[in-house]
Amino acid sequence: MSVCVPKGFLLAGVHCRIKGDPRKQDLTLVVSETPATAAGVYTQNLVHGAPVALNRRRTPSNRIRAIVVNSGVANACTGERGLRDAEQMARLAAAACGAEEDQVLVLSTGVIGAFLPMDKIAQGITAAAGKLAADEAALVSAARGMMTTDTVHKLAGRSLEVSGRQIRITGLAKGAAMMGPNMATMLAVILTDAALLPEVAQAALAAAADESFNCISVDGHMSTSDTALLLANGQAGGEPLCGDDLAGFRRGLGEVCVELARAIPADGEGATHLISIEVCGCANRQSARQIAKTVANSPLVKTAIAGADPNWGRIVSAAGYAGVPFDPAGVTLRINGFLLYEGGTPVGFDARAVSESIRSHRDTLVELELREGEAGTRFWTSDLTAEYVRLNADYHT
Amino acid sequence: MSVCVPKGFLLAGVHCRIKGDPRKQDLTLVVSETPATAAGVYTQNLVHGAPVALNRRRTPSNRIRAIVVNSGVANACTGERGLRDAEQMARLAAAACGAEEDQVLVLSTGVIGAFLPMDKIAQGITAAAGKLAADEAALVSAARGMMTTDTVHKLAGRSLEVSGRQIRITGLAKGAAMMGPNMATMLAVILTDAALLPEVAQAALAAAADESFNCISVDGHMSTSDTALLLANGQAGGEPLCGDDLAGFRRGLGEVCVELARAIPADGEGATHLISIEVCGCANRQSARQIAKTVANSPLVKTAIAGADPNWGRIVSAAGYAGVPFDPAGVTLRINGFLLYEGGTPVGFDARAVSESIRSHRDTLVELELREGEAGTRFWTSDLTAEYVRLNADYHT
Repeated sequence: MSVCVPKGFLLAGVHCRIKGDPRKQDLTLVVSETPATAAGVYTQNLVHGAPVALNRRRTPSNRIRAIVVNSGVANACTGERGLRDAEQMARLAAAACGAEEDQVLVLSTGVIGAFLPMDKIAQGITAAAGKLAADEAALVSAARGMMTTDTVHKLAGRSLEVSGRQIRITGLAKGAAMMGPNMATMLAVILTDAALLPEVAQAALAAAADESFNCISVDGHMSTSDTALLLANGQAGGEPLCGDDLAGFRRGLGEVCVELARAIPADGEGATHLISIEVCGCANRQSARQIAKTVANSPLVKTAIAGADPNWGRIVSAAGYAGVPFDPAGVTLRINGFLLYEGGTPVGFDARAVSESIRSHRDTLVELELREGEAGTRFWTSDLTAEYVRLNADYHT
Repeated sequence: MSVCVPKGFLLAGVHCRIKGDPRKQDLTLVVSETPATAAGVYTQNLVHGAPVALNRRRTPSNRIRAIVVNSGVANACTGERGLRDAEQMARLAAAACGAEEDQVLVLSTGVIGAFLPMDKIAQGITAAAGKLAADEAALVSAARGMMTTDTVHKLAGRSLEVSGRQIRITGLAKGAAMMGPNMATMLAVILTDAALLPEVAQAALAAAADESFNCISVDGHMSTSDTALLLANGQAGGEPLCGDDLAGFRRGLGEVCVELARAIPADGEGATHLISIEVCGCANRQSARQIAKTVANSPLVKTAIAGADPNWGRIVSAAGYAGVPFDPAGVTLRINGFLLYEGGTPVGFDARAVSESIRSHRDTLVELELREGEAGTRFWTSDLTAEYVRLNADYHT
C-alpha cells in the first residue's frame, strides 16, 4: 500500500548539523495549511523531556498548525533552560510558517542531558520551511529527520472511504531502543485529513496507542521523550466524524499505529528477530498484557531467540514471575507453531526443526496459552544480540 | 577471613556425570551429625521447581539431617514425575546418611524442563556419602557441586563469640544468571553450629535474605529454583539464642548473606563490573528498593557501565519510570564519587576522568540521591556485555 500525504499537509526533513553526518536529516517540519485538531499521548516517565511538558499543555487542541522535530539531542534532563529552548523552537517554527507560537508542537529525540544547539535549530527551521512539499520524497525526508539509531525510516498509511469521501491517515515514527512498554514508547506523528473534534481525536489516539505503541518493547527502558501526536485538519471535507464513520476511522488509525509500532522492535538495535508474543486464556486483558510484557522483557528469552534456541523453560518461567496468578499445570506453549509444552508438562519435540524454523525466519511467533479465562493480547519485541550491547556500550561518550 | 566448617557438619562434592566434563562436580551432600533446625526462603515464581515444593513442606523444622544438591538439571517444569524424582532423591540421601526420608532437603539447579537422571543421582549420592569430611577441601568441593555457569565457587563465613561460646556461620552459594530481584534469587546453604529455634531461624533467614539475596540481580529473570536454606545444629553448645546473643548472630548471618549475595553479580555471566547502586533520600525503604532495582535492571544502564560510559541520563531516566513518585528537580547523581547531576540539572564534569575511573575499577558505585525523605537502600548488579549474550544465545540446545 503506497503511503501519501493527506490533503492540506506539507512536510520537509533537512540536515542542520545537529548530527555530524551531512547525509543524515536531523530536523523535520510538518505544517497543516489550516488549523488542525491535535491529540497527544506521552511518556509516563517522571523524568521527561522539555518538549513533553510543552506538548502536554497544548493538546488536545483545535488549532495546531505545525510540528517541529529534531533528532540528535533529546532536550531532556535540561532543567529551566531546556523548557525555554523548547518554547523558542516552537516560536521559530511558528514564525517560519505564519502561525502563532502556541499553534506549534515540539519533538526532540537523541542524547539525554545535552542542551539544544539553538543556532543550528534556527537555521534548520528556516531551511525546512523553504522546502515544504506534499510529495512522497518530502514524506520520506520528514520521517528520516526523526531518526536516531533507526536503520530504516518508518511510515504507514491507510486510505478509506467515509460517507462517500476519501480520507487518508499517514503516520511517521522513529524508535530503535530505550523502548519500554506501558505507554507510547517512541516518537510518532500521525496525519489525517479527516475532520475530528479534539476530544474525539484524543480518545481515538489513546485507544490506538494502547493496542500498538504500548504493546512493544526493545529493552524495557522507558524513554523520557515518548510521544505520539495526531493532527486532523479536516481537509477531506465534511462534518467531524461520528458513529460508524468514526468507528471506521478508528479501525484505520489502529492499523496505522500497529504497523508503525511493529516496525520499531523489527528495527530494534542489533535485532535479528521480531518476536510476536500472543498470550490467551487469561482472566482479563491486563493479566495477559502483564505476562506478555514480562516474557518480552526477559533477557534470557531474548537471547534464546537470538540463538535460535527453543529454550521454552525461559518463556514459561518468565510468565511465572509476571505477578499474575495462574495455574502452572494449565500452561501450553508453541513457538512458530511447534508444540513444546502442554498442560504444564514437557512434550517431546524436534529441537533441531524448531531451531531451524527460528533461524530461518526473521519473525518468531510465541504462543502462550493459559486456562484462566478468555482474555488475550499481542506484544512485540526484538531479540537481544551482542550487537545491541556493542551499540549501547559505545553510544554517547 | 578463612572459612571453616561449623561443628557437627560434614560435606562432600562429587562428579556423577550429570555434567559432561569429569572435572566438574555436579552433586553435593551436606550432613549434620545431629538433627538441625532448618529454615528456608524460596522463589516467588509461580512456576517453581519440584525441590522448592518439597522444601516448602519441610521447613521450618527442628529435625533436618541433610541437604542433597545437584547441578546441571533444575528439575523444574517437570510435572508429577519431577515431584516423584525429588522425593526419591531425598530418600536416597536419607538412606546414605542414616536419616529418615523427611529429614532431607533437596536442591536442583541447571536446565529447566529436563528430568533428573536418577541413576546418576543415586550413584552420586553413594559416592558423596563415602567422601564426607569437615575440612576446607570438602567445603570447596561442596560449593563447586552447586555451580552451573558460575566461574568461581562462592563461600563466606563468620566466627563470633556468643555468651562465651564460639559459634560459626558458613555459607555456600551459586548463581550467575537468571537472577531477578524480589526474593532469594540463587541457591544458598548457610550452616551454623549455633542453637536456634525453628521460628527464630526462619525469621533471621528471611530478614537476612531481604537485605542481601533480594538486593541483587544479573538479568532480572526470576528463577524457578531460588532457595536459601539455613541449618543450625546447636553443636556449639548452649541454649537456643535469644536477646543480645541472637542479635549478634543475626548481624553475623547478615554479613555472610551480603558477602554471598555480592559474589553472585560479581560473577554475573559475562560481567566485567559489579555495580553497587546506593539510593537515599526516599520516603521509605520500599521506594528506594524499587528505584534501585529499576536502575539495576535497565539494559541501557548496564551496557553504559560495560562501555565505561558516564551516561547519567540513562540512570536518571530509569529512576523516573520506577513507578515511585518523586520530584525530578531534587535528583543528584554521583558515579565513583564524581558529581554528574545535581538538583535536576546537568553539571559540567570531566567525562574522560569518570570513564577512566569506571574502566579501571571492577567495582562501580552509583549514588542516587532524592529529596523525598530519609530512607535508602543498596542493590548490586552486573554490567551487560556481549559475552552475556553469547553465553545465553548458546546455552542449552
